[in-house]
Formats: sequence, C-alpha cells, structure tokens
Amino acid sequence: MAVVKPSLAKGTRDFSPSEMIKRNYIFDTLKTVFRKYGYNEIQTPSFENLTTLTGKYGDEGDKLIFKILNSGDYLAKAPDNLLHDKNSNKLIPHISEKALRYDLTVPFARYVVMHQNDITLPFKRFQVQPVWRADRPQRGRYREFYQCDVDVVGSESLLNEAEFILIYQEAFERFGLKDFNIKINNRKILSGIAEIIGKPELIVDMTVAIDKLDKIGLEGVNKELLERGFTEADLAILKPIILLEGSNDEKLFSLKTILATSAVGLNGIAEIEEVFDYVSKLGAEEKLLNQIIDLDITLARGLNYYTGCIFEVKTNEVAMGSIGGGGRYDDLTGMFGLKGLTGVGVSFGADRIYDVLEELELFPIGKADSTKLLIINFDKQLESYTLNLLNKLRKENIASELYASPVKLKKQMGYADGKGIPYVLLVGDEEATSGQLSLKDMEIGEQIKVTESELIQKLR
Amino acid sequence: MAVVKPSLAKGTRDFSPSEMIKRNYIFDTLKTVFRKYGYNEIQTPSFENLTTLTGKYGDEGDKLIFKILNSGDYLAKAPDNLLHDKNSNKLIPHISEKALRYDLTVPFARYVVMHQNDITLPFKRFQVQPVWRADRPQRGRYREFYQCDVDVVGSESLLNEAEFILIYQEAFERFGLKDFNIKINNRKILSGIAEIIGKPELIVDMTVAIDKLDKIGLEGVNKELLERGFTEADLAILKPIILLEGSNDEKLFSLKTILATSAVGLNGIAEIEEVFDYVSKLGAEEKLLNQIIDLDITLARGLNYYTGCIFEVKTNEVAMGSIGGGGRYDDLTGMFGLKGLTGVGVSFGADRIYDVLEELELFPIGKADSTKLLIINFDKQLESYTLNLLNKLRKENIASELYASPVKLKKQMGYADGKGIPYVLLVGDEEATSGQLSLKDMEIGEQIKVTESELIQKLR
Repeated sequence: MAVVKPSLAKGTRDFSPSEMIKRNYIFDTLKTVFRKYGYNEIQTPSFENLTTLTGKYGDEGDKLIFKILNSGDYLAKAPDNLLHDKNSNKLIPHISEKALRYDLTVPFARYVVMHQNDITLPFKRFQVQPVWRADRPQRGRYREFYQCDVDVVGSESLLNEAEFILIYQEAFERFGLKDFNIKINNRKILSGIAEIIGKPELIVDMTVAIDKLDKIGLEGVNKELLERGFTEADLAILKPIILLEGSNDEKLFSLKTILATSAVGLNGIAEIEEVFDYVSKLGAEEKLLNQIIDLDITLARGLNYYTGCIFEVKTNEVAMGSIGGGGRYDDLTGMFGLKGLTGVGVSFGADRIYDVLEELELFPIGKADSTKLLIINFDKQLESYTLNLLNKLRKENIASELYASPVKLKKQMGYADGKGIPYVLLVGDEEATSGQLSLKDMEIGEQIKVTESELIQKLR
Repeated sequence: MAVVKPSLAKGTRDFSPSEMIKRNYIFDTLKTVFRKYGYNEIQTPSFENLTTLTGKYGDEGDKLIFKILNSGDYLAKAPDNLLHDKNSNKLIPHISEKALRYDLTVPFARYVVMHQNDITLPFKRFQVQPVWRADRPQRGRYREFYQCDVDVVGSESLLNEAEFILIYQEAFERFGLKDFNIKINNRKILSGIAEIIGKPELIVDMTVAIDKLDKIGLEGVNKELLERGFTEADLAILKPIILLEGSNDEKLFSLKTILATSAVGLNGIAEIEEVFDYVSKLGAEEKLLNQIIDLDITLARGLNYYTGCIFEVKTNEVAMGSIGGGGRYDDLTGMFGLKGLTGVGVSFGADRIYDVLEELELFPIGKADSTKLLIINFDKQLESYTLNLLNKLRKENIASELYASPVKLKKQMGYADGKGIPYVLLVGDEEATSGQLSLKDMEIGEQIKVTESELIQKLR
C-alpha cells in the first residue's frame, strides 16, 4: 500500500472538537426553536436518483450537481459514439444514475409526494443536513455545507408567515444578536408595480435591477432598467416606489395609493398587513414590528419560485450577506406530479451565522459538552484510589478522565490545556491519605483543597 | 420540466419525524456516554480524494466505494484507448478524483495525520456520520448508513480498553437492554495458539475457521481446519482450546497452562487480566465481570487490522448479529506516513440497535421532542385570544401550535392524532369568556377543564 500524503478534497472541511461544539450549539439552538413552533425533523438520503434532481435548478445548477459514477462495468452499455466523441455531457445519464443532494427543497418535495398517504397536512418539517455543489471553492463558499430549512406545506394561512418571523426573531435573539433586520416583501406587490407601469412581462428584469439598489445606487438601477427595456417615463413612476421611506405602516399607506389600480398589488399589501396583524396578536413587542421587521420593496429572492411573501434576514453588527431567507411558493410538489400544494418556509445560513457569532464573540464559553475534570496520573499504585474516584464522578454524570498513564506532569497538564478541560485534580500519596485533594482551576490558575464530596458538589 | 414519478435511490431511506425521534434518541444517548468518558466529537467531509480511500479496504472494498464523476468536460483528458476498449476500471482515475466516505476509520486516520500539530495526544474522538457502500441492498443492509465510532490514539494504556467495556455497558443499559454480552479476545492469544501448534503462518486460516464454531459446530470447524492445512494432531491440541468453558477466571487459568511456552500468548493473557483489573478498579459489579464480559477465544474480527484486545457485543434478547465491536490497532496512521501511533476504538451498530429497541419496545414513549399541545382553531374571531395564549405557552418553552385555519374539528383532531400530539385544547367563545378551557388528553381520551395557569403548570 503506497503511502499517500493526506489532503482534503477541494472545498471540503474537517471540523475539530472545538468547532463541533460551536456548530452543534447553532444546530441545537435552531432545532429547539423549530420544535417549539411545532416543526418536526425529517432526513432524506444524501444521494437521489439523478432524474429526481436534473432540471430543477436550471442549466447552471445542473452542472453543479455532483454525479455518482455507476458501480461495476459502468461503460459496458455506454453508446460508442458518445465515447468516441468524448461527449461528456450526453454520456452522463449512461454512466451515472445517482447524484448528491444539491439542496433540501427538491428532496423535501419528493418526500412529500412519496409519503403523501402517510403524512398529515399541514406538514411542518425541518431538515438540517449537508448539501453538495460543484462550485469553485472560495472564501466562505464550500462544496459541502449544511442547510437548515424549515417549511410547512398544505396550509394557506398567513399565520405561518407570521410564525416564521417569530422563529427568526427567537433564534437570532437566542444567539445573542442585538441588531438585525427581518426584511419582508411580497411577490404580488412586485407584480403590482410591474402592472401599473404596464410592463408585467418585465417583472423579473425590474426586480433584478431594483434588487441592486444597495450596491449600485439609484443611478445604477435606472441605467440597468433602461438597458432592460424600461423608458424614462417608467423610471419616473418607479422612483418614489424604489425610494419609499418611513415606518412599515407609512410604506404600506403609500403603497396603497400607488397600487390602487392593481388588484394583485393590493392583494400583496393585504397579505403583508395580515402577517403584521398575526405577529402583533402573537404578542410581538413594538421593537419587532417597527424596528426589526423591515418592509423592503427592493427585496427579490428567486422570483420564479416564490409566489407570496418573501423574507431575508441581515445582521447590522457584522458586514455579511443574508443569514436567512425564504418565502411562500405555490407549486413545490408540481414537479413530481402533485399539484396545488402551497407551502412557505425559511432557511438559516449556518456557516454565516457561525462566522457572525465568532466575530461578535457570542459563542457561550464553558465548553459544556467537553470533559470537566482531568485527574492527574502520578503513579500506577494510586490508580486504585483515582479510578474509584473517577467512577464516583461518572456516576454523577460528570464528564471526567484519568490520564491513562503516569507520564510527566507537564505532559498531562498540556493535555488538559490542549483539550480545554477547565479543572485538573492532583492526587498524590498525601492527598489520597488525607482525603484533601488539590483542585486546579485552569482558567484562573488558582489551586484549592477539596474533599471528594466538595469536588462532586462543585462540578455537578 | 417533465414530471418525474419520484422514487428513492436503491438502498437509501427517508426518515420520518417519528423515526427521527427514535434515531436521535440513539445518537444522543451514545454521544452523552462518549462525552462522559472524555471523548469529543469531530466530523470529516462526506467525500475524500479518491487516492485517500483507494487500496485501504482490499479489492472488494475498492469496488464498493462510490466514485464521484468529475465536473465539467470530464472526458477531455481521458485516454482514447481506455474509452475505445470500454475499460471501466482503468478509466476511473481519469474521470473521478473524489469518492464518498466508505467508513469513518480511514478519514479519522487522515484527520490525525493532517492535524497532528494541532491535536493533543492521546486524542479521544467520536464520530457519528453516514457512510456509503455500493453493496447489493437487502433486508437490513443499506447503501447509506450511520457509523458511530469512538477511538483514542496515542495511548498504550489498557485503561482505555477497560473504559470501552464500561462505555458499552453504560450505553446498552441506558437503552434498557437486560441481557447482553461483551465478548473479549486478544489477537496475541490467537497468535500464541497458532504458535504452540507450530503453524504461526496459518493464524488467519485458524481464526477464520474457529470463528465459525457457533454456526457450524466443532465437526464443521475441524473439517475446515483440515482443508486449510492443519493435521489431526493439530486438531487434538486445538480441541480443548476451542471448547474452553467456565468463568473468565477459569478460562484464563487454563490458557496460562496451554500457552505456557508462548511468550506472545502469555502477553495476550496478561493484557486481558490487566483490562479486567482496571474494570474492577473502576467499580464494576460482579455481574459485569462474570456475566456480561465473556472471554471468547473463538472471537476474531479483522485480524489484519487489530493487534491487541478485540471486542464484540451481542444481545441475547433478540436474534441479531453483533451490535458493536472494535479493538486495538497498532498502525492506523501508517498508511498516511505517520508510523507507530497505537490506538483502540469501538463502534456501535445504530441500525441494528434501532431494530433491537423497536422489537423490545424500549424506545421511550412521550415523543418529548414533538409538539405537546394543539389549540383547536374554531373561529378566526377567537384568534386574538388563542394567539395570545399560544404566546404565553411558548414563552414557557412549551412546544405548541394553533391549527393555522378554522377548518372542521375532525380534520384538526386528525392532525393532532397523525402527529402524535398528546394534548388538544378546545377554546370556544364560552371557554374564552369563562377562562375555563377544555383540555383533551389524546392518549386516554379524557377531557378536563383547566385555567391558563393550570394548563401551563401541567405542560411545563
């Protein structure tokens, strides 16, 4: 067996114990909040039949799906002409029938359709699993990353939208974020705007352009709108809409006038109002309704997909893209033949949340999940005593270790240090006889004498 | 977009909410025990460079590794002759550079070598992640399944072996298993036996044959030994060893006589004795030492790999293969150029444990992770009241839901039932006015009147 110098596959990461503690903190917090609002966990397989995934993400997306080579003599039935022409693209379905999950949405749609006779609608599920994309790796972009999705299908009620706002608020407040915005918009308002301009067919061009307001400013947006088929007259109508300011209520008030002639636009406004009403009835404080929630007409997310309310969350404490987003869609399962099932859902960007919490030093200290106490191993003769003590500690469910062999003290202390163990117990002959054990607090460096029961009391 | 009738990829599974609760119960229990003994979690990527995995699992194993097709124009640089000859095997490295994890051991070895400057030895890690194998799917064998591995590298101390026995005991007792055996053997005892027969080179043939004692009986084992190059005289020496009976102490006593002339054999016995001594000092009851632990000379697991103690766990309550196994290995990281690092570890068979707990009805009832209360939605007019109550419940971290729209009572009750929600609250005009709410216990069907604070008290 030749020796291989080990390396990671491009765009993938190992997670060390201290990273796992932080990642688990994020996932566990999210799952706790999801469950509190009645969402249950499901998992789907890492790979799906290629036909399940192909065509769902556009041509560019299809290219980014990782395909799995068939096992065995996979070339046996491959057409000679495709091999001869080296036609990589057309050969794929002949040598690959499976592919890695690209997101959690399509597998969820498949799940709902396949299990439609077993599940009770409305079906409220969350899913926290890795997905894989053959993107070019770069800072903050990986080929394997976790998605955290929470969706309900089979319920038209806007109470669901309101609860997603509360889920966002509760999750980010649990993480300790102090200043963030939950942006909300509605696809129907965007349709209304395109309608009053008289160019409903240009809605995608319009939203793609105004979505860039933050980055390129009004002038840039106008330039792009002109390039995309709008006239100066259109820009005059659009300007006050794009630059809409004030409180959410003020914006809604203005929009009602602006969109007075558009039925779909007014419908979108009414939906937003109903969501706000639900949020309010659910006991929201002023801060949520007037500061955290931000009605943003320039917000556009996956317009081919979303049909009602859309959401996006941004933190104002760190320069970072959106840390969450989602919305309502009306035909998730249509791609698998189950029509007319409406749904709404949001997702959390776990990797970005990790970076935000790291930068703001918001991860809880204490490494609660890790060993609390290391007992130093001075002498094999003392093991009868120390192992007995170890047993007593573990009976109290205190995560603890005896260093497994009596090596030099420095090495054992280095082990406790490297592993972030908060307490070290030094038991020599004298301590074992007197019952007065030396306990060192690794954080502050202080050493005190404790009895066994005091030790257990302190660590429990 | 053509409609595809959805199906699962062969050998893969979806996990429903109720299955996830049970699976999480297993994983969480194991992780809690691992942490208590000082083990920390790591995760490695789902795919590795193909060269990292190839050649580590034998020729048969290599065939079962799922290879990932390169992205883009993957055929561009493929040799024409291999394409022309349809040489599936030789073409692989030209069109695939990545592959799905086949087990957690090789990625762990890679991790240790790559991070050797960051980790503190001894390094105690656990890893609970899926692995993928292109096996032919059959009952109980899947192409995607979880492995739960816990290992320590960089410590020769047999205290580690003893603690793995305690980890097995604690985990399986937490699961509620009442009758199981932790079998132990030592590779050195097997070497000693082959040595005293004078055929050390036949150790693998010998162990493969005697490993089958349970299945084919002594006669079958003898037949196979003769076929594999042993003589009748060898069988006469082997017979009392294979049929060794009595308590663990009695077996050890007999083995000392039988292996008196084999240094390696006596070494193996001494190791087992030291492990037992540690187990005893760690406060083990009689039952563990004399009933649960079973010194089994016929036990052989991956002999090319293990070098010291080997373990296997079987339940006696359900007909089922081993539900755990492991042992000591002396050269895990040698394949990646880091020599002389000893390690020991065990793993848990999560899928089999699931089936055992299901059959013995040992999964905790109560679905603690799921919604505790559904509030029936009788009338949109009542939502001010019910949403306010919902908010109070959630403030107490009680997982609860209001049915999102006022549909027929039967449908709402069916939702609670399908989701396994234990309590349903019926709030009509009268209840909202009087503050006397009707709470239905879905399990026993009983309905009682409660005030808001009584409700919170009951569910908290």
